[in-house]
Amino acid sequence: MKAAYYSGNQSFTIREDQPKEPQAGEARIKIAYCGICGTDLHVYHGAMDARVTTNRVIGHECSAVVDAVGAGVVGVAPGDQVVVRPLKHCGECPACRKGYVHVCQNLKFLGLDTEGAMQQMWTLPAHTLHKVPSDMRLDHAALIEPTAVACHDVARSRLQPGEDVLVIGGGPIGLLVAMVARQAGGNVVISEVSDYRLSVAEKLGFKTLNPTKVNVAEAVWKMTGNKGAEVVFEVSGSRPGIETMTEAAAVRGRIVMVAIHGKKPEVDMFKFFWRELELLGARVYEARDYEKAIELVVSGAIDCKTLITDIQELEDIAKAFKALDGNATAMKSLIKCS
Amino acid sequence: MKAAYYSGNQSFTIREDQPKEPQAGEARIKIAYCGICGTDLHVYHGAMDARVTTNRVIGHECSAVVDAVGAGVVGVAPGDQVVVRPLKHCGECPACRKGYVHVCQNLKFLGLDTEGAMQQMWTLPAHTLHKVPSDMRLDHAALIEPTAVACHDVARSRLQPGEDVLVIGGGPIGLLVAMVARQAGGNVVISEVSDYRLSVAEKLGFKTLNPTKVNVAEAVWKMTGNKGAEVVFEVSGSRPGIETMTEAAAVRGRIVMVAIHGKKPEVDMFKFFWRELELLGARVYEARDYEKAIELVVSGAIDCKTLITDIQELEDIAKAFKALDGNATAMKSLIKCS
Repeated sequence: MKAAYYSGNQSFTIREDQPKEPQAGEARIKIAYCGICGTDLHVYHGAMDARVTTNRVIGHECSAVVDAVGAGVVGVAPGDQVVVRPLKHCGECPACRKGYVHVCQNLKFLGLDTEGAMQQMWTLPAHTLHKVPSDMRLDHAALIEPTAVACHDVARSRLQPGEDVLVIGGGPIGLLVAMVARQAGGNVVISEVSDYRLSVAEKLGFKTLNPTKVNVAEAVWKMTGNKGAEVVFEVSGSRPGIETMTEAAAVRGRIVMVAIHGKKPEVDMFKFFWRELELLGARVYEARDYEKAIELVVSGAIDCKTLITDIQELEDIAKAFKALDGNATAMKSLIKCS
Repeated sequence: MKAAYYSGNQSFTIREDQPKEPQAGEARIKIAYCGICGTDLHVYHGAMDARVTTNRVIGHECSAVVDAVGAGVVGVAPGDQVVVRPLKHCGECPACRKGYVHVCQNLKFLGLDTEGAMQQMWTLPAHTLHKVPSDMRLDHAALIEPTAVACHDVARSRLQPGEDVLVIGGGPIGLLVAMVARQAGGNVVISEVSDYRLSVAEKLGFKTLNPTKVNVAEAVWKMTGNKGAEVVFEVSGSRPGIETMTEAAAVRGRIVMVAIHGKKPEVDMFKFFWRELELLGARVYEARDYEKAIELVVSGAIDCKTLITDIQELEDIAKAFKALDGNATAMKSLIKCS
């Protein structure tokens, strides 16, 4: 079987590997598709070499078919279509003991801290698998992982039907958050600077605001009858996004921090005090977010066709990353592994 | 009757005023004591002249006895001992319509936006009054307002018995937050730089950490068995406090923003993401916080004797402010108004 190893400095090496036999509690899955995540692009740029090393099969947004299972595995069987929730928790730290296993203090993220999905066969803990319907398109199923991120973000926001929602950033995750929030009954508007992404957001039926042309916070207050947005998702990772999130939020508004801000931004703490705002960090997903994501992708509430803008063969992984990198008109690229 | 008018630039003018007749829905109260709040010190320094003007009776941390009531007033009668919840909401803005009247979008704060308590008689809306027991010491009752602030902060934190709590800042509000959190079952440690304030915190029975001597976050992680503090109150208003609040918080920890950070500090947004932290803004109080504060002060759970470090006559208000200003060994100063 073929496996694509990230080998440092924007390069991959395709190798012929022997599929691993699943041990007790493990499953071997035949990967159908694996999406390229923003995190994978960071790896590609060498930004995570210390954590990932320069000899690793990365990838975690995958769909697959179960090939074999080890002893004691229940719930999945060969032939089942599945997706992977790529988290391995320790079960012993204070966070795990409280039930927050997805933010385990010793969490291993499969495909970063361990081998991942950009190979033809992957042997991994069976508890990470979620079954999807047997007739589901597996290219669409590869979007379940990022959709689960969005489901987790929306769950963290405690969004209620009829509430006004601002999503700052209209990339793949921003659009998924917007779709999940809309499905939960939110009145969603998306703030985005790229004309292409704005056009996609509009094609998906969303109201949009372009911060290079309007003051987004003022527009939100005007659109909401001087109330502001009950829920704000900061997905842009930008300084202006940090500014807008506090300005646009209603009294007692909930701001969900989806983006990864590597450098500490200046944040308007006074507005948190004055309007009793809440900031809620959100990371990866829990099992229930996966179940919700499967339901939404299967039902068509997530427009996978519009989001998937490129599919490349595993052998062409380097080409796929190069084509995606800095491409203003790309959304989600998939690697077809088998 | 005498009234002390803030008249700009660290000065007060004592005037002889005519007590106002209470109109419908109003009460006239005879002020017993009025505490000096940090906000009053800001006023004293001229930092709030645009809002307060330089011809205003300030003060809002008061205890009083009802002198007369206007038409239609129920629930309080002449002779009742009372405290004032100094908030006037509009009832019509989006925040009020949702029931968040204490963070009304047009909130008037009595004693800043209107006349206040540093006078002998005050005529004000009767709905702002809470009755206290007829045998209660009125010097202690003057601490109910700041205790209600602390009750609101602790309510915002959703503190559960047995949780570990870090209070950053050991001034009057920090100590009140610590006492209310302890009463709610929290294991409280206080971080404070001043030796005097540390000694007061210790006298009140609290564990303390001095950030000039130890790394507070590391100490908290060690004290909590590598878990961190479930609840952090940032009361210091300092940059190091902002740093410590995210470092010391447990996975899914709740950080309550009590301090007013006028300038936007750099905040570790990555930790909010990584540990799924929550930041909760907290401002003033709700009616239930007053009821809780009355209960706690009456029961002795709040050590008023230790907190009250100075009492001055109304005529000596300028002296009282001067004595408090920048005084490292002062906690709460009261003005005796009648």
